[in-house]
Amino acid sequence: MEAKVTGEGRGETVDVRWHAHAVSPVQREQAAGHKGCVLWFTGLSGCGKSTLANLVDHRLNARGFRSFVLDGDNVRLGLNAAPGLLKERHGEAFAQRFGLGFSAQDRDENIRRIGAVAELFAQAGIIALTAFISPYRRQRDAVRAMLAPGQFVEVYVRAPLEVCEQRDPKGLYKKARAGEIKCFTGIDDPYEEPLLAELVVDSASQAAEQLADQVIDWLEKAGTIPKKK
Amino acid sequence: MEAKVTGEGRGETVDVRWHAHAVSPVQREQAAGHKGCVLWFTGLSGCGKSTLANLVDHRLNARGFRSFVLDGDNVRLGLNAAPGLLKERHGEAFAQRFGLGFSAQDRDENIRRIGAVAELFAQAGIIALTAFISPYRRQRDAVRAMLAPGQFVEVYVRAPLEVCEQRDPKGLYKKARAGEIKCFTGIDDPYEEPLLAELVVDSASQAAEQLADQVIDWLEKAGTIPKKK
Repeated sequence: MEAKVTGEGRGETVDVRWHAHAVSPVQREQAAGHKGCVLWFTGLSGCGKSTLANLVDHRLNARGFRSFVLDGDNVRLGLNAAPGLLKERHGEAFAQRFGLGFSAQDRDENIRRIGAVAELFAQAGIIALTAFISPYRRQRDAVRAMLAPGQFVEVYVRAPLEVCEQRDPKGLYKKARAGEIKCFTGIDDPYEEPLLAELVVDSASQAAEQLADQVIDWLEKAGTIPKKK
Repeated sequence: MEAKVTGEGRGETVDVRWHAHAVSPVQREQAAGHKGCVLWFTGLSGCGKSTLANLVDHRLNARGFRSFVLDGDNVRLGLNAAPGLLKERHGEAFAQRFGLGFSAQDRDENIRRIGAVAELFAQAGIIALTAFISPYRRQRDAVRAMLAPGQFVEVYVRAPLEVCEQRDPKGLYKKARAGEIKCFTGIDDPYEEPLLAELVVDSASQAAEQLADQVIDWLEKAGTIPKKK
């Protein structure tokens, strides 16, 4: 990782050696005190993915660990912005070419980009927590395939459709039932349950705090984070 | 940030309160011991951006700070993959729609996505170091506009074209001069020098270690990281 170069500057020739001081994953892990990984929360709208991811993030942060939640709020406004958001700064043609909508293809790309970003966070030694419905197995499996073995932790936040629909925190089920939203997961588009999730938690009968315990416990047992003293 | 829900599970109705325990930027900063930001290294191919970014990353990591380098190696293989890389898993139509090439539009999108990801890292309390030529002011200014005031730190790694071409660590200038690469920055495509960079370092007459000192010094003076004891 070294390249010897001769640079000319200010009229005199100087010898400059350029070293590429890349930080190794082991050095990063030692500095952080834990491993990086992706906790991929999946489940129906209203199942509590985002709440759970934020609660786990909060607990990890309180212990001094490096973690971050990727969710619709911070991704759909920037990285995966809709055409309408890109238009003003970048123009119509650019917005149409690169903006993401809600077609099946666009939703696959949405998840693919999120997976790629989560991978970068994991490489940076961070525990990335993602909270997206990600209803199709092919989407989740594509992200799993991107990551190093053991770095992708699929957490299925399970709750019956009836429970999620009764909660309906954003009023989306109501709109979907009224036909105002098409292809809504659970209503007129399928949710493909994980077959081999690393962890399944039951958000219909347990409080978020209990589910967070289970996630933290899993991370400790897997050796991703050290056990609490 | 609280939603009361009634969930039904296992035949009994339970009351579950869902709290959104988001970690605040201040809490994140306290845990990390420094602020998050984006150090955006820009300059000609061969000017030493990547070497410098990695050296600064190394020093920050050695002090226990949270930092990470985004460069072509980890971005063009995943997030901003070319069509050819997407084709196998996602099919031809998907690859053509979402794969990034090297047209002016695609290069703008490349930088836009990198900026959006760097923003996520900064939000996560991390010092993100990016090492891309990013030759156009409009690209860099678009990223600056995305970020909160003070979070975008433009570092111009300045070296005369002759010096970079003489170094030619990847043999790219030779190919560009031979006409094998078109629209190569500095040869047949412009590099627009930053007008108001937060920091300008001179890589033609100074070793990478000296430039890294200047970057670290800047971060300390700006209050992004604490002064070294």
